[in-house]
Amino acid sequence: MVAPAGGGDEFDIIARCFAPLAHEPGARGLLDDVSILAARSEIAVTADAIVEGVHFLPDDPLDLVARKALRVNLSDLAAKGARPLGYLLTLMWPDTRPAEEILQIAAGLAVDQALFDVSLLGGDTVRTPGPLTVAITAFGRLDGPAPSRAGAQEGDGVWVSGTIGDGALGLRAARGESDVSAELRDALAARYRLPNPRLDLRAAVAMASASMDISDGLAGDAGKIAAASGVRLDLQSAAIPLSPAAREWLVAYPDDARLIHGGDDYELLLTAPPDAAAALSALGLTKIGTVTAGAGVTLDGGPAPQGFVHRLGA
Amino acid sequence: MVAPAGGGDEFDIIARCFAPLAHEPGARGLLDDVSILAARSEIAVTADAIVEGVHFLPDDPLDLVARKALRVNLSDLAAKGARPLGYLLTLMWPDTRPAEEILQIAAGLAVDQALFDVSLLGGDTVRTPGPLTVAITAFGRLDGPAPSRAGAQEGDGVWVSGTIGDGALGLRAARGESDVSAELRDALAARYRLPNPRLDLRAAVAMASASMDISDGLAGDAGKIAAASGVRLDLQSAAIPLSPAAREWLVAYPDDARLIHGGDDYELLLTAPPDAAAALSALGLTKIGTVTAGAGVTLDGGPAPQGFVHRLGA
Repeated sequence: MVAPAGGGDEFDIIARCFAPLAHEPGARGLLDDVSILAARSEIAVTADAIVEGVHFLPDDPLDLVARKALRVNLSDLAAKGARPLGYLLTLMWPDTRPAEEILQIAAGLAVDQALFDVSLLGGDTVRTPGPLTVAITAFGRLDGPAPSRAGAQEGDGVWVSGTIGDGALGLRAARGESDVSAELRDALAARYRLPNPRLDLRAAVAMASASMDISDGLAGDAGKIAAASGVRLDLQSAAIPLSPAAREWLVAYPDDARLIHGGDDYELLLTAPPDAAAALSALGLTKIGTVTAGAGVTLDGGPAPQGFVHRLGA
Repeated sequence: MVAPAGGGDEFDIIARCFAPLAHEPGARGLLDDVSILAARSEIAVTADAIVEGVHFLPDDPLDLVARKALRVNLSDLAAKGARPLGYLLTLMWPDTRPAEEILQIAAGLAVDQALFDVSLLGGDTVRTPGPLTVAITAFGRLDGPAPSRAGAQEGDGVWVSGTIGDGALGLRAARGESDVSAELRDALAARYRLPNPRLDLRAAVAMASASMDISDGLAGDAGKIAAASGVRLDLQSAAIPLSPAAREWLVAYPDDARLIHGGDDYELLLTAPPDAAAALSALGLTKIGTVTAGAGVTLDGGPAPQGFVHRLGA
């Protein structure tokens, strides 16, 4: 891991910022070319990057930016029932930002390492003439088979954890694109800035026939399970769980379909056979529909609003 | 893995560009949130990113850029004697580049996957208002202990593979910052654009007391082994192996210390006990010095030129 200097050199920054985060022996104190992953089982691996101006706002606090980058990766592990083991951090650091601010990145990561019992294992820090970009690769131990998106069966229920839509509303709130109360705006913006990976729901994932986290909107992500499994997902809008903040929002903006096609919820979306219903309810999940023959996603019997589709390039 | 659209949508690009590269079952066809690493042994993991305008030139062919990104990671695995298993690709794609050019990235990776018997396992593609950035995390299987930088012992020899200095000279040549012959310029530039990870030297690494790849210049990287091991490395300049191209360069520029403090050679630097000397020579490595008591690095008894130190930020 090569890290930058702000008065000191790269070793100084590694020692001050990142070495304190690397408590696993396999991290080799961040002094080696590789880290060692002790593998006693199958390992789930996932990589996600967030870019300033695309996935977070230039004035977002850097400790929260770092925590969001880690959490979106932990969310992928959570959707597969994996226990987080560690992560690699690749930091693209802008020429225009003082290197001292890397300490804010490290401080945020330290908080979440303690919350989620995970260790930095290594990585790379490079300079960039472009925007701050935080890329993380996370590793998780699998104690059983990891449900894919392809296992949904006709007759299964469709379930979600938590509440839906807060992430997308939170982005609007964080941008100030709303005239709702300051309290509501802050609650939603906080949800956007700091998603909560559902690592507490391994028991639910263990019952799932298909499972993923909701990062591109409920409707679009339901479509991914439908496509991978060769089935149709019929959703009921009245069943979709909403937070008090989202309900208040819908009073102000009754037709805001962003709640189900917006992204960034980081709740779990899973399908499971009917005999799992009582256990999933007991774990706090909500049934929002059923799996049937066909293709695609319906909402209240009609077409569902399309999910977010990433488009890049000129 | 979310990939961009160029007429089609993200699924189209995944299917066309990246799914053909994901031949390992654990990649799950790039249709899942995670990939599964079947772990029967310890796994070496490493992450390195390259940034347009910092680590490669804006007009470098994209297939070579992608192969360089993969190879600098494979080089870290090679230095630890690990057999490559697969990699995750995180692509930061500029808004200004046509998405069709991602096919060039994929084409380059396909060539090196065949050469090095490795599979894409997953990753992420995001758009960026900044420069093209290719971040890779690579995994390798360890059949024995991986030498760290900290194991060098007094009395060990200091060894390198291949020839030293071509990478740094190649950067100057690729930039046109030289008046040597076109043939020499092309040979050096090719070496800069496409380093050769020494995965063929696992037998040498197995004999090493300490080992790393040379990515920040021989002198600087020798200093890292010295610091980590608490020893001094005494190097002899006459023993350092040079390519015909580098020798020709030194005729034109006799005082160019870039050969030993420049970076980007991606050869192996290792220390090994005297009884390994015959075997290391037979494997084509060259002894360039000895490990003694003390600290730091000497060249011909005097101070060695300093290695490249990464400095970032405002």
